[in-house]
Amino acid sequence: MSKNDKEFVKEITAMEVDFPQWYTDVILKTDLVDYSPVKGFMVIKPYGYAIWENIQNYLDKKFKETGHKNCYFPLLIPESLLKKEAEHVEGFAPEVAWVTHGGKEKLAERLCVRPTSETIICSMYAKWLKSYRELPYLYNQWCSVVRWEKSTRPFLRTSEFLWQEGHTLHETEEEAQEETLRILEIYREMAENLLAMPVITGRKSDKEKFAGAHATYTMEALMHDGKALQAGTSHNLGQHFTKAFEITFLDRNGDLQNPYHTSWGVSTRLIGGLIMVHGDNRGLVLPPRVAPIQVVIIPIAQHKEGVLDKAYELKKLLQDVGVRVELDDNENYSPGWKFNEYEMKGVPVRIEIGPRDIQNNQVMAVRRDTLEKQSISMDGLADSILNLLDTIHNDMLERARKHRDENTYYIEDFEDLKKKMTEKLGFAKAMWCGERECEDNLKAETGATIRCIPFKQEDLGDKCHFCGKKAKHMVYVAKAY
Amino acid sequence: MSKNDKEFVKEITAMEVDFPQWYTDVILKTDLVDYSPVKGFMVIKPYGYAIWENIQNYLDKKFKETGHKNCYFPLLIPESLLKKEAEHVEGFAPEVAWVTHGGKEKLAERLCVRPTSETIICSMYAKWLKSYRELPYLYNQWCSVVRWEKSTRPFLRTSEFLWQEGHTLHETEEEAQEETLRILEIYREMAENLLAMPVITGRKSDKEKFAGAHATYTMEALMHDGKALQAGTSHNLGQHFTKAFEITFLDRNGDLQNPYHTSWGVSTRLIGGLIMVHGDNRGLVLPPRVAPIQVVIIPIAQHKEGVLDKAYELKKLLQDVGVRVELDDNENYSPGWKFNEYEMKGVPVRIEIGPRDIQNNQVMAVRRDTLEKQSISMDGLADSILNLLDTIHNDMLERARKHRDENTYYIEDFEDLKKKMTEKLGFAKAMWCGERECEDNLKAETGATIRCIPFKQEDLGDKCHFCGKKAKHMVYVAKAY
Repeated sequence: MSKNDKEFVKEITAMEVDFPQWYTDVILKTDLVDYSPVKGFMVIKPYGYAIWENIQNYLDKKFKETGHKNCYFPLLIPESLLKKEAEHVEGFAPEVAWVTHGGKEKLAERLCVRPTSETIICSMYAKWLKSYRELPYLYNQWCSVVRWEKSTRPFLRTSEFLWQEGHTLHETEEEAQEETLRILEIYREMAENLLAMPVITGRKSDKEKFAGAHATYTMEALMHDGKALQAGTSHNLGQHFTKAFEITFLDRNGDLQNPYHTSWGVSTRLIGGLIMVHGDNRGLVLPPRVAPIQVVIIPIAQHKEGVLDKAYELKKLLQDVGVRVELDDNENYSPGWKFNEYEMKGVPVRIEIGPRDIQNNQVMAVRRDTLEKQSISMDGLADSILNLLDTIHNDMLERARKHRDENTYYIEDFEDLKKKMTEKLGFAKAMWCGERECEDNLKAETGATIRCIPFKQEDLGDKCHFCGKKAKHMVYVAKAY
Repeated sequence: MSKNDKEFVKEITAMEVDFPQWYTDVILKTDLVDYSPVKGFMVIKPYGYAIWENIQNYLDKKFKETGHKNCYFPLLIPESLLKKEAEHVEGFAPEVAWVTHGGKEKLAERLCVRPTSETIICSMYAKWLKSYRELPYLYNQWCSVVRWEKSTRPFLRTSEFLWQEGHTLHETEEEAQEETLRILEIYREMAENLLAMPVITGRKSDKEKFAGAHATYTMEALMHDGKALQAGTSHNLGQHFTKAFEITFLDRNGDLQNPYHTSWGVSTRLIGGLIMVHGDNRGLVLPPRVAPIQVVIIPIAQHKEGVLDKAYELKKLLQDVGVRVELDDNENYSPGWKFNEYEMKGVPVRIEIGPRDIQNNQVMAVRRDTLEKQSISMDGLADSILNLLDTIHNDMLERARKHRDENTYYIEDFEDLKKKMTEKLGFAKAMWCGERECEDNLKAETGATIRCIPFKQEDLGDKCHFCGKKAKHMVYVAKAY
């Protein structure tokens, strides 16, 4: 280890020792994010932002393919608008930032920094919509929102975060419900096919639903530490907002109607999920399709004739088939230091190429997820690497699914649940009566919550596992971020 | 004209009658934008936002090709940070929005909604930077900013707008200057090759430069009404901020140094420029490369056998070569109504296809910029359309350049300038002494300002045209948005 190398050794706390500290070490030491001068606000550094850009590109394409268009609504919302829908203001007012002055002047009415944009968007929809012929409205915006949080952690819960928020209007209740589920399915597909993150999908209980929603649908993922993460939500808002904001249209019979309404969003929180589903004690493990760098090429004995030339040739070869590839030919650091560095950063594949490899017409490739090393022939190398990236994705998804399934279990009774929620966490499957009081008690006694009423219902008996009354739904219960 | 048609006739004030009203009519009636419930804030509707997305995609690619990476810094900036650079706070404090409360609690320190992010970014750079080895820092962010404006117009001057802001650090003064000019050149190239908008590039006077800058470089375009628009700026910030924020690094000799600093941005204001450079009394005229819809196909007698099939075939043909094409087969509107509608919306090429065209193995194509109609053979149609789009771009750029040149003139003396600035506006070329007092007087007497000290200097004599003292620079003078 050279002097330069030593200086840059970075240590990550083992996740078995202290999971929250492991998370903090990983996000800071891999340069994903940093704390800012404003408490609870984060700076997303280039390596973290590049992950977000990949998520954006993937979703934006899916949204457009399903007929959605992007637009932009103001950052600031008058207090009077926020107050128009009763449940909504109750849910959000305690956590908004208020603008009271513009320049030197005190404003006649306070403006809140948007915590979400249903209210301002509905005020515009009310102005625009005239006829059923214009429906559906399928609009989305990419922006940041502010929610004044007391306790924050980068990506998982911050006072400002980046997200997309879709806001749609429909002629009928059925169409709004279809849209709500269509989007949830886009989210689920993205979680699995981009992030290699398996999710449970279902409906939120009334207690856990969005403030002002008719019904909220969610996808829930299981983290390494056995806690659940709500990774995306899609709301069927019914006519709650369209009535409060007097959005009307002339229907096919010439009658004035309120349209049906949905909203849905995913945020930079997904990055937190990604880290806690796949990371290990060496740092990040990024699924190939979302990784900013998919392959890093590290030349060995790069001063020897032909090594760098060949390395650059490989880089171009991979770039030409669309692989996000980097070559690190920095002479100040040893190959060993670079191996550690890119392992910590979670780059899916490392390619080592030295004089002997060139002689043998091969490279050495090391998978980040398994640390397996294999030699790959230069012949057909691009295809081999593309296949390897797909294999890694599939294996990571399978491993995460296995972990999730191994930590999903049935319970005997409430006592059993309390015990399991202390010992191993994970997802408990249980029957529930559907009563709010029972749900409140569940949280008070165990710290866990009903994560969702899954679409895939199982019949686990006819009694509520928590209170013994008649069961209504089968649910997933977990402690959550 | 059918009943439906009549209902949707939209009238646009002629620009010769009332240019500001023409502008307002165009942006509202073509659904680019709308006013919001918060004074001075605009809603960017899907058709307007799609233009912004095309600008974003174009620039983002150029930034990345030149080594820049995207990141995200907090929306809210503590008052104490804003105050660290004296000129900067003086320039921006009067026009920021202040957050004073989070939820129910009053904040210990006021936070401003970012008007620009030099201060918060510098506070982070001070924390991160250690060694010359890490330089340059080449970071950019896409976001919205808020500046509390008294008098606003959508796109041109609004209290919130979307933009990108690049913030870079360099080892040497020379490198910072190179970066400043490299970015200005990216902007100029984009203005001409994407927006077909010719620009004058040069340096701002000290009076007009960015608050806290060493030097500001600008590109200035001329609008239809003879007023200038500052369309993008790139600032060499020297060490003003890096000293105020104590950003230091160990240089190659092991000495502690302040790095050199640049920032640069373009905004949704470009869309306003686009409209006022190319629009006409029928509405928008969009340059093909930035147009959300490049070609619209309108079937004639679409109920006749084979017409719609052929129209869809054409659509696919054009899509396959990357043309942004739409087909309007709405039966509720006549072809004539659709012609008007897409002309107003500025779609560069309209393709009409009916039974007779099919019989003749051709389509009719109408250029939006010239309204010229031509028949184009189905054989090689995709190539013909791609060529036509390029021709339209080149012709639009040439026409705008011709208009600019015809409205750029020399003046005899200050009296002559006053007269011209009342009669025809445009760009006046003049010699200037370089004194602030003279510049203030110029503005007071004519309402015009020095737009820039152009890179291409001409020798127009040795006396200042405004005060008669010794001339220092040749400048462009205009009334401006």
